[in-house]
Amino acid sequence: MFDQYLSQRYRTEARPSSEAYLVKDRTAIVGIGVTEFSKESGRSTLQLACEAIKTAVEDAGLRIEDIDGIVKYTLEATDENTLMSSLGIPTLNFFADCPYGGGACIPTVMHAAIAVATGLAKYVVCYRSLNEFSGRRYGRIGSERVGLSARNFQDGFLAPYGLMSPVSWVAMLARRYMYEYGATREHLGWVSIVCRENAQLNRRAMFFGRPIAMKDYLEARMIVEPFCLLDCCPDTDGAVAVIVTSAERARDLKQRPAYILAATQATATDGETVTCYHRPRISRGPESWYASQELWRVSGVTPNDIDVCQFYDAFSVMPIIQLEEYGFCGEGEGADFCWGGDRIRVGGDLPLNTAGGLLSEGYLHGMNLIVEAVRQIRGTSTNQVNNVELSMSTAGVGVPTGALILRR
Amino acid sequence: MFDQYLSQRYRTEARPSSEAYLVKDRTAIVGIGVTEFSKESGRSTLQLACEAIKTAVEDAGLRIEDIDGIVKYTLEATDENTLMSSLGIPTLNFFADCPYGGGACIPTVMHAAIAVATGLAKYVVCYRSLNEFSGRRYGRIGSERVGLSARNFQDGFLAPYGLMSPVSWVAMLARRYMYEYGATREHLGWVSIVCRENAQLNRRAMFFGRPIAMKDYLEARMIVEPFCLLDCCPDTDGAVAVIVTSAERARDLKQRPAYILAATQATATDGETVTCYHRPRISRGPESWYASQELWRVSGVTPNDIDVCQFYDAFSVMPIIQLEEYGFCGEGEGADFCWGGDRIRVGGDLPLNTAGGLLSEGYLHGMNLIVEAVRQIRGTSTNQVNNVELSMSTAGVGVPTGALILRR
Repeated sequence: MFDQYLSQRYRTEARPSSEAYLVKDRTAIVGIGVTEFSKESGRSTLQLACEAIKTAVEDAGLRIEDIDGIVKYTLEATDENTLMSSLGIPTLNFFADCPYGGGACIPTVMHAAIAVATGLAKYVVCYRSLNEFSGRRYGRIGSERVGLSARNFQDGFLAPYGLMSPVSWVAMLARRYMYEYGATREHLGWVSIVCRENAQLNRRAMFFGRPIAMKDYLEARMIVEPFCLLDCCPDTDGAVAVIVTSAERARDLKQRPAYILAATQATATDGETVTCYHRPRISRGPESWYASQELWRVSGVTPNDIDVCQFYDAFSVMPIIQLEEYGFCGEGEGADFCWGGDRIRVGGDLPLNTAGGLLSEGYLHGMNLIVEAVRQIRGTSTNQVNNVELSMSTAGVGVPTGALILRR
Repeated sequence: MFDQYLSQRYRTEARPSSEAYLVKDRTAIVGIGVTEFSKESGRSTLQLACEAIKTAVEDAGLRIEDIDGIVKYTLEATDENTLMSSLGIPTLNFFADCPYGGGACIPTVMHAAIAVATGLAKYVVCYRSLNEFSGRRYGRIGSERVGLSARNFQDGFLAPYGLMSPVSWVAMLARRYMYEYGATREHLGWVSIVCRENAQLNRRAMFFGRPIAMKDYLEARMIVEPFCLLDCCPDTDGAVAVIVTSAERARDLKQRPAYILAATQATATDGETVTCYHRPRISRGPESWYASQELWRVSGVTPNDIDVCQFYDAFSVMPIIQLEEYGFCGEGEGADFCWGGDRIRVGGDLPLNTAGGLLSEGYLHGMNLIVEAVRQIRGTSTNQVNNVELSMSTAGVGVPTGALILRR
């Protein structure tokens, strides 16, 4: 039935692999920059953004005047005008916003890559800055959620039932996943525990110095069933930036290039913003199903080839679902894949979220996952996987999304 | 002094013309769609957007399922999820938002063109839908203008002096232009009069059937000196969509392709959102100066080669300034270029805004200018210029912007 549904509502077949894709291996991430992650940055998102961008520029061995493109989130509070005046960027030939919150992280890199590949820009910054703890917290429920608007019509229907913040939306996905595949809270717990373990090696992580065991997980305060506090990423202040340029220019810069094998953006019909409970199947959602199809098509590699992956993990259930969506295991097998943690730890089949992920490093809306994916290519992670050739990361779940494969 | 300022704050030299620009002539606009323009659409922006997109798809001879990319304004109230479900678009491989209001119109086409040129998407829709008269009117002053935010810090400084809406911001630019170059209100009036003349041939125009003479202009109600009512575009309800595909695919579609010779996006440091009164020179603003440099560099043609131009004309002074910025005349000569209207009418040196422009056709935030530029290539304008080979249009003035040259 699901296949019939797919064929009726979606493209009936995958695109032919022969179709042109003129980005592959032509661009690279050459600079990364992060601020500290905290609950109280004590400064504006503008200052945070400037710091992360300057750090990324220095990391690449560039000058700020070299920057000629900027891609940001549509949700970003800072803008190009202000950044340019503050940093001393003379001119830009390319700028764009990426919509859908955490769905935007990989797409920022994809947009930068096509701008570079077509010669529109040479050095493009992708960034995100947030005072998400000390400023506006996404978990807080604002009065705008209760309204009925063309943009978020689902809010108007769901808010009266209490579904007014991301944790409540995703809790419903988790509950249905557990119901359909027999997963338990312990399954979710293993994701949180392994991310927290990874964070113990990363001094920058929000939860550095605070490991957790299954007992802590099961005793933690319930937020929205089945999610306890430890199923949720922490609201975080900070900023992250990366710089994309051509593969050719990358070879002359300071760092080992992280070549962009594939950077995709994808979505599918019948989507909502994390609230698609009515679909025939809860895993392999149409957006991620299509993002996955496109990723493997344009990259020409398979899940078996991936050495390490940073899955978008705003909530613990998300890596479980993405393991299935991206073909690392079969439908309903993601929970068991994570049980005990051995297969997802460094040394396991697919090491995940090696810096702690959004769950334990901090919630920089996915951009910090890209930085860790780059570190794994460079060999500079605090939790390094041996001999990484292909390093993957993903964007948000249940929203228009995308995925990235970096090549050494 | 201005040159010194430029060399200090901006790129010190134009980019070399030899630099790769892999978009030129590889893509085309193949479909256009518009709704009626009115003061009261009587339906949602979602419905307006769907109508314009369906019309554009039919115009191109495509099916709605062919669409695999969407580019919209960051300000747009509708979104991809809702459009896809409403229209039956199965999947998307590319989507982006373009910031800075009217600065976004040409950039939507540029982003679509690079997505197509790199093989990321085949048929990309760019659109804008507004209930700008019956819904939220940009000219109205909201309480958010009075606040001081990182995003719009200038609002916090200017609002206390009454500069709280676009007409007040641009009035200051016009006043300084008039002061520096000896232009008069009659000079501005000629722009409004010629746009209104052009609208008399276009049944779709908001001001069809309502021609004006200089007497009407000079007697019109003052809004913010030196702007009277007839210096301002009308708040408009409606939607506009265009479809971009590859030059190769364009040849097999229904309409004569409008090949994209150059589509640029550009901005420069020290920018604000229409409120840069402190610059050494009021014409040739850094954003447009750079947009112009880039346009001629990547297109390889000159202002003399352009047959017809749709200048962004939210206010009457804007075409005058852009004539100078894009090199159609010297600094301070734009006002005289428009005097009497003969040089800017069809048959003149550079026919402008042949469907009536934003001033008289309607304020669709610049997207309707692109549609008219396409009609001039097709030979289907209601005010057709003879033998059009190159048809140009521009994006907003005093904001990050861009320009487009279409080739027959």
